[in-house]
Amino acid sequence: MESIKNRRTIRKYQSKDIPAELLNSLLEESFRASTMGNMQLYSVVVTRDQEMKVKLAPAHFNQPMVTSAPVVLTFCADFNRFSKWCRQRKAEPGYDNPISFLNAATDALLVTQNFCTLAEENGLGICYLGTTIYNPDQIVKVLELPELVMPVATITVGYPDECPEQPDRLPLTGIVHEETYHDYTPEMIDEIYAYKESLPENKHFVEINHTETLAQIFTDIRYKKSDNELMSETLRRTLKEQGFEK
Amino acid sequence: MESIKNRRTIRKYQSKDIPAELLNSLLEESFRASTMGNMQLYSVVVTRDQEMKVKLAPAHFNQPMVTSAPVVLTFCADFNRFSKWCRQRKAEPGYDNPISFLNAATDALLVTQNFCTLAEENGLGICYLGTTIYNPDQIVKVLELPELVMPVATITVGYPDECPEQPDRLPLTGIVHEETYHDYTPEMIDEIYAYKESLPENKHFVEINHTETLAQIFTDIRYKKSDNELMSETLRRTLKEQGFEK
Repeated sequence: MESIKNRRTIRKYQSKDIPAELLNSLLEESFRASTMGNMQLYSVVVTRDQEMKVKLAPAHFNQPMVTSAPVVLTFCADFNRFSKWCRQRKAEPGYDNPISFLNAATDALLVTQNFCTLAEENGLGICYLGTTIYNPDQIVKVLELPELVMPVATITVGYPDECPEQPDRLPLTGIVHEETYHDYTPEMIDEIYAYKESLPENKHFVEINHTETLAQIFTDIRYKKSDNELMSETLRRTLKEQGFEK
Repeated sequence: MESIKNRRTIRKYQSKDIPAELLNSLLEESFRASTMGNMQLYSVVVTRDQEMKVKLAPAHFNQPMVTSAPVVLTFCADFNRFSKWCRQRKAEPGYDNPISFLNAATDALLVTQNFCTLAEENGLGICYLGTTIYNPDQIVKVLELPELVMPVATITVGYPDECPEQPDRLPLTGIVHEETYHDYTPEMIDEIYAYKESLPENKHFVEINHTETLAQIFTDIRYKKSDNELMSETLRRTLKEQGFEK
């Protein structure tokens, strides 16, 4: 599994297209992931059409990968198909609630990661767009998602046209806990984040952003409380509109 | 990637232990998954102690894998470590809200699936326990999870002592949509679920459960509306208690 070990996010792609046959076979294999009661509570919308990419881009804050990648995949939590089947079989579905959203989102995210691994193993590069859950309402509209369908992940895919440095990761001991969660002391926090803070690119980041610490770039610029609260509202509203908060 | 294609859930394990070195190296590799802004918003609690497994079991409806697997892993959405770092660096974190939970849960679930792939690639077998989000309050207590930490996935791991049949999957065309979501007609639903309904084990299931249709086993026995509503309440309450609904 060298591809997982050596993976890096790819944001620049060759103009070369991805054959439908390859894409479908990777998707089909990805559906082997564990799924709640074998219900397969997900759908995938494939975007290849340039016009559709342009329509999707604003929901992803116009990140250039959306319009430059040959393929954009939107993975959705989907209780619509299953509920329709139930109704057609004299069974009354009860999946219009938060736990069902989380079940379906889990199913969808396991498949998303499976797809990414398979894509990378086959020479493709991917970029995971975290923006999907920030503007789900816009994506619902563009992709015409019905009730009980909610977008949870977007991946841009293509043949890599770059090979960026691998980003740093926190030390294993900062993430893994034995038997119970051992909460972090100030000393442990210093230790866990020391390497990240020592990196020249992060020091440069602090300099050009005129902040005092690296953490302030996250709290004051990239992932602000006020933005998070606004996006939480959009998330709540969209979950309600999509029927997961009955 | 034959291991993804051929994968099956393993519920029976050899008594053979998993060396800590192997487990740690698989976990470390799994942390290569995409993560929101490279924040790594997850923690993993490793359970090897038999007493701890016994304590965890009720939260997972006493499924026997919890006490019989050599290792149980609980993957948690974690904004605690990151927020502590922020505070220690004169930065005010704003991650006590639903979107931050979903960001962290996404990070954790991508890592979970990555770990499963790596484990299976290395000859281990896994079982994904969907029960984690049904009784998160119990897991929080047993594993002593602090505020801004929420369990989202549990995996039992060990060397396989069985090789069950691969379960069926819905046809690709029932899951993948081109450009926009094409909602299902009754004919499409019949077609998509025809193979599943034709399987002898599913027909047998209907017979022994005395239901009229396979779908009724899901709606009336396995995933009931009343249970989903109760579990949604527990989910909401636990998210609040863990500080993600400020």
